[in-house]
Amino acid sequence: MGSVGLDTVETRAGKRADVLGGAASYFSVAAAFLAPVRLTAVVGTDFPDAYTKLLETHQVDLAGLERVAGRTFRWSGIYAADFSTRTTLDTQLNVFQDFRPKLPATWTDSAYVFLANIDPVLQLGVLEQTKKPRFVACDTMNFWIEGKRPDLLRLLERVDMLLLNDEEARQLSGQANLPAAARAIRAMGPKSVVIKRGDAGALLFHEGGVFSAPAFPIEDVVDPTGAGDSFAGGFMGWMARQGDTSPATIRTAMILGSVLASFSVEDFSLDRFRRLDLGQIRERFAAFADLVHFDKIKI
Amino acid sequence: MGSVGLDTVETRAGKRADVLGGAASYFSVAAAFLAPVRLTAVVGTDFPDAYTKLLETHQVDLAGLERVAGRTFRWSGIYAADFSTRTTLDTQLNVFQDFRPKLPATWTDSAYVFLANIDPVLQLGVLEQTKKPRFVACDTMNFWIEGKRPDLLRLLERVDMLLLNDEEARQLSGQANLPAAARAIRAMGPKSVVIKRGDAGALLFHEGGVFSAPAFPIEDVVDPTGAGDSFAGGFMGWMARQGDTSPATIRTAMILGSVLASFSVEDFSLDRFRRLDLGQIRERFAAFADLVHFDKIKI
Repeated sequence: MGSVGLDTVETRAGKRADVLGGAASYFSVAAAFLAPVRLTAVVGTDFPDAYTKLLETHQVDLAGLERVAGRTFRWSGIYAADFSTRTTLDTQLNVFQDFRPKLPATWTDSAYVFLANIDPVLQLGVLEQTKKPRFVACDTMNFWIEGKRPDLLRLLERVDMLLLNDEEARQLSGQANLPAAARAIRAMGPKSVVIKRGDAGALLFHEGGVFSAPAFPIEDVVDPTGAGDSFAGGFMGWMARQGDTSPATIRTAMILGSVLASFSVEDFSLDRFRRLDLGQIRERFAAFADLVHFDKIKI
Repeated sequence: MGSVGLDTVETRAGKRADVLGGAASYFSVAAAFLAPVRLTAVVGTDFPDAYTKLLETHQVDLAGLERVAGRTFRWSGIYAADFSTRTTLDTQLNVFQDFRPKLPATWTDSAYVFLANIDPVLQLGVLEQTKKPRFVACDTMNFWIEGKRPDLLRLLERVDMLLLNDEEARQLSGQANLPAAARAIRAMGPKSVVIKRGDAGALLFHEGGVFSAPAFPIEDVVDPTGAGDSFAGGFMGWMARQGDTSPATIRTAMILGSVLASFSVEDFSLDRFRRLDLGQIRERFAAFADLVHFDKIKI
């Protein structure tokens, strides 16, 4: 569950207008390479059929995708030439403003639930519609950490994992040091915390200790939009595919998340996923293994 | 070869005045856990015997440590509470200003040579005193990249490896993207480039591909001074200990570098090294292996 929208994005590699975006779009297609996905979101009547078809082509179940009168959520932004910062030029909530996500009746048994970044009250609302999910993960952002902290804290008591970026982790915990921030956040509820650090990879803190997933060094980054959501998609896709929540599976899921994120940034919107297949995912998984491989020699 | 000095450092963990510092101090003691070290540097008559003894205790050969009339190099700095920035309060070159490093005659056969951050003219001068070293690595900084670029480029044509931080890599190459920066720097001469990223670890670009060494997540950082030099020390110590320059050895050396750097920040000055032994190094090497371990499963 999360946002599906139309993005207008400019990077050093070019510009795209009104292309498919939104956390739930990236998440769903990334996850769908590994497991069946059910998408809950809302779009307006202007949402292009081509994008509905794209999601369907990837076998994303759209029974939870509401189409209501009005315009689709829109975001527009521009990235610095070195990708170190991005500036939001425009955000139009449109139909997203009154989104009250409702799971189709047959979906309440969903075992692996991802609550993308959205008002924590709505994240809680979705969670309450599910019956004993096996593994619940959520994302959040500075806006909710500041503005809806009590609701966010109520949500955190009920999720297994929180994924957030380093600045959000510092803001939520009040701790500058990332291991300290993760410890503080784990005390709020989630047994596992994933801190995403962009091109510095991601750190997992959980009962199995600490795990460091590298980012894949990519020379030709085209558009970083959606990388974190693609990470979450690859992560949850692997969890659902394996059907277990062991520390070992969570570690492998971190790498699948990194794999999908690394593909995501190689083109605008979800375009790289259009020409992605499981063979390429396997190849890059092996490349990740090589990226961190060193001989376990005797010192 | 590099600087030995007296540091006055303030961090959230406390303050220390006139403690042992300098790139060559950290490098030498870190490397000495793994291989015999020969130190070329200069100090003044005020350099405390206790610090000379500390270096000797770690079996660092001080035949190249000149002691000349005048005061020892001094640096003073303060770190932000979150360690995100540091401010230099004072730098006094003192005897370091007229340092013209000279290798003892019996040291010209040194096989593994590390030229710590110092004027590239002096780095070249030391290199020219050596006879066919097997592996030469050097460090540098923004000051030389800006002010002595032609000399630095002449040096780079003659070294096997350059270690520098991400900002320096961007400045030297004119490339914001790190893999692109590394490619540009490798074209300047060094077959291997190590880009140090602080608590985001280090990236190695060389003929064996790309290798990502994580940083060890440390909750109680006391003083980050010298972490990069300790990394270089652990790295070169392992290279010298193994006596080969294969891609596999270079990768393992990256982890030993990370291990020594991770210990270095746990206390002020070289204090953590005073109570470090090979057993602890072995344990942390194993912890690094666990930090990046994931099952190489079939997708």
